[in-house]
Amino acid sequence: MKLFSSVNDVTDINALAVEALKLKADPYAFQHLGKNKTLVLVFLNPSLRTRLSTQKAAMNLGMDVMVLNIDKEGWALELRDNVVMNGTTVEHIREAAGVMGQYADIIGLRSFPGLKDRDEDYSEMVFNKFVQFCGKPVVSLESATRHPLQSLADLVTITELKTRPRPKVVLTWAPHVKALPQAVPNSFAEWMCKADVDFTIAHPKGYELSGEFTQGATITHNQQAALADADFVYVKNWSAYEPYGQMPAVTENWLLTNDSLKNTNNAKVMHCLPVRRNLELSDEILDGPHSVVVHEAGNRVWAAQAVLKQMLESL
Amino acid sequence: MKLFSSVNDVTDINALAVEALKLKADPYAFQHLGKNKTLVLVFLNPSLRTRLSTQKAAMNLGMDVMVLNIDKEGWALELRDNVVMNGTTVEHIREAAGVMGQYADIIGLRSFPGLKDRDEDYSEMVFNKFVQFCGKPVVSLESATRHPLQSLADLVTITELKTRPRPKVVLTWAPHVKALPQAVPNSFAEWMCKADVDFTIAHPKGYELSGEFTQGATITHNQQAALADADFVYVKNWSAYEPYGQMPAVTENWLLTNDSLKNTNNAKVMHCLPVRRNLELSDEILDGPHSVVVHEAGNRVWAAQAVLKQMLESL
Amino acid sequence: MKLFSSVNDVTDINALAVEALKLKADPYAFQHLGKNKTLVLVFLNPSLRTRLSTQKAAMNLGMDVMVLNIDKEGWALELRDNVVMNGTTVEHIREAAGVMGQYADIIGLRSFPGLKDRDEDYSEMVFNKFVQFCGKPVVSLESATRHPLQSLADLVTITELKTRPRPKVVLTWAPHVKALPQAVPNSFAEWMCKADVDFTIAHPKGYELSGEFTQGATITHNQQAALADADFVYVKNWSAYEPYGQMPAVTENWLLTNDSLKNTNNAKVMHCLPVRRNLELSDEILDGPHSVVVHEAGNRVWAAQAVLKQMLESL
Repeated sequence: MKLFSSVNDVTDINALAVEALKLKADPYAFQHLGKNKTLVLVFLNPSLRTRLSTQKAAMNLGMDVMVLNIDKEGWALELRDNVVMNGTTVEHIREAAGVMGQYADIIGLRSFPGLKDRDEDYSEMVFNKFVQFCGKPVVSLESATRHPLQSLADLVTITELKTRPRPKVVLTWAPHVKALPQAVPNSFAEWMCKADVDFTIAHPKGYELSGEFTQGATITHNQQAALADADFVYVKNWSAYEPYGQMPAVTENWLLTNDSLKNTNNAKVMHCLPVRRNLELSDEILDGPHSVVVHEAGNRVWAAQAVLKQMLESL
Repeated sequence: MKLFSSVNDVTDINALAVEALKLKADPYAFQHLGKNKTLVLVFLNPSLRTRLSTQKAAMNLGMDVMVLNIDKEGWALELRDNVVMNGTTVEHIREAAGVMGQYADIIGLRSFPGLKDRDEDYSEMVFNKFVQFCGKPVVSLESATRHPLQSLADLVTITELKTRPRPKVVLTWAPHVKALPQAVPNSFAEWMCKADVDFTIAHPKGYELSGEFTQGATITHNQQAALADADFVYVKNWSAYEPYGQMPAVTENWLLTNDSLKNTNNAKVMHCLPVRRNLELSDEILDGPHSVVVHEAGNRVWAAQAVLKQMLESL
Repeated sequence: MKLFSSVNDVTDINALAVEALKLKADPYAFQHLGKNKTLVLVFLNPSLRTRLSTQKAAMNLGMDVMVLNIDKEGWALELRDNVVMNGTTVEHIREAAGVMGQYADIIGLRSFPGLKDRDEDYSEMVFNKFVQFCGKPVVSLESATRHPLQSLADLVTITELKTRPRPKVVLTWAPHVKALPQAVPNSFAEWMCKADVDFTIAHPKGYELSGEFTQGATITHNQQAALADADFVYVKNWSAYEPYGQMPAVTENWLLTNDSLKNTNNAKVMHCLPVRRNLELSDEILDGPHSVVVHEAGNRVWAAQAVLKQMLESL
């Protein structure tokens, strides 16, 4: 594997999830693969889970890791071509990516969307330019429109915890006070559409995701109907795709409680975290037996490790 | 050892100090203990000595280390329960601690007091919640009311440098321009009260420490009388316990000079650092033969290594 | 080697460059040297290439690395002696350097000039005080007046890519919108003056470098004349030495294009990076066959590794 930026970069997602669970059972079996190999993690935006879990995954594989929080360094990158750099940007992404490629065997990159210009965000301009110029295999640590390491960890969690061969999985929108990217729901949707699950998306009117990520999913505005018989409920806020980055008013109550889960198949509740309590998810769910959110975050390690292992094998 | 947050977590402080000195003599003898074990250091407040010395200690033991400067990341944690998180906090300590526990074998946490609400600070709410929810052994890297790794390093230094079996140790208040926590003096006092030393505390009126830390100590407002025959003089500023976090006016001169040390037993002068020169301690002491402050800072490594070794042995 | 702060700390710069190229061919041959040795990298100013390349070099040698971005930590150091520290500085460089020396076998330090007081900058006060008080071997990661790891990487690049025994090397000034230090051109000049090259410096009137760095170089204000038959063109902006840190107006066009390189010996164009496109260097050069800037940045690893190897051998 030379690139891990979406579900389309994976030949067999079920095999990859199974590989992740094997690594969970035996984390240190492949340390020879990473010996004298360096992973550089480049963050243009903040990170907690992704940074720690990917670093841990790389160390489990025997790799060295260097972390660069560019967002904290005031090292403003120029992304446009053909400009005279006489403003505030200090380095062009062409050189920055090229140089980081000199010091890395594999690079991880996080680059959030601006949520202002949909075409720019959905072109994945920043992520793709970085891939183009760094010259090394790249793992997405969340880009403008996708968060594939999270989605793989989610698939790993569902594979690990499912109680029937083809579980019902529901992605449901949840409230928030800030406009959030569509990367997590886009990505979860495109992975679930390829997974061996019965997949439903529930969201208020106005929060339709781009159709390219939801082919094959059942889509509804009725949260309660969607939850019926669900095995997994994936909770996440996102802002609108159209009008882009906006938060159309929602009058119904989309905050789940234990009561909302009555008609599920004793559903496990998932969230990528961080989660705002009692805004996105209620205390009673997060502190009760339905929640698997911390367990799910733990699986981020094995998802990252499976991807890095495949990349190391391709070097 | 599953928790290192105060002197009460240690069965035999002298044995622990002796263990630290053995590690100083032979730093790399226990690297098998830390193999494939990860220490996550979480800082809610700035750190220099604690970060570097604890990281070094862990590496000496063969551990991997990941550092998270949450204070720099703008990752505001919610600490209160039962609140709707619709403000500026992005993640609850329940999830944050739980997730970090997924990526760590041992966690170090630094959490300073607010110095506004004494009950809250002295309840160690933040530190204790983190311990409760992370599910892994925790080392305090300084909490609201204690700095036990510093105190152990201080005991190690005294054990190493003492010239008689039961040395006289004096903790003396020093001036400052900012209101500082009581964590270092509280902690030093509770360790010295259990150590095989003759322990005196000297401070101006109004700077009494909480009685729970000073049981058995001689307490005086007369710095010169306290210093008589002292083997070790531990210099530190702190703000008042009552009125909490305030700086009652002090009219006498509490800044030590070489002259102040005349009646000591050629005392060694200690400070946890950072120290403000000519405010807390004079140039002539810091640059003269009495000072052992840099040596003391060096012993932070062996203190941390002794604690981490015991934790690794308990995993 | 106990100190690497300028060309004067190196006995034989050609041998050192050859050693770097040997390490490039066989990067992991000396991992026993760095086992259980710690490099502490201390940054008083931002860094990307220097941090990553030096960290990578140390890891290649089997060292552990700890990075301290003091500029980001709000840990303001006091540099002056004999002052009462009742202002904003929290720790004196005497203690800070001394303590870091306790946790390191080798220390790397970056400290930029203020560009206000030439005597202070050119005395290398900060760098020299740190060296004095840390008590360990120190590698400059760029100081007020020099950037020797960059210069060594430049010599390595020239040694590697030259097509005749004694190539012509031209250092040419380039435009910028900010006043930049003289460290890179000073340092490049003093290394080239000792290297086996024909060395010319071209800059506008008013941008003379201090004579101590340029002994033996040909100096001209005519860029085109300088470029004739050049094998390597090193492009860099700097501010004036006199009036110090100023940017005297330049009316001619100093921005190189492919056309400017016509009379060179198919010159390779170098730059230490970061480079501002179309201000310092044109797109057509950076994206064309003349540019070796990313390759040059890659050589930073082998330069650092050669220096660290010599230091490890001297421990």
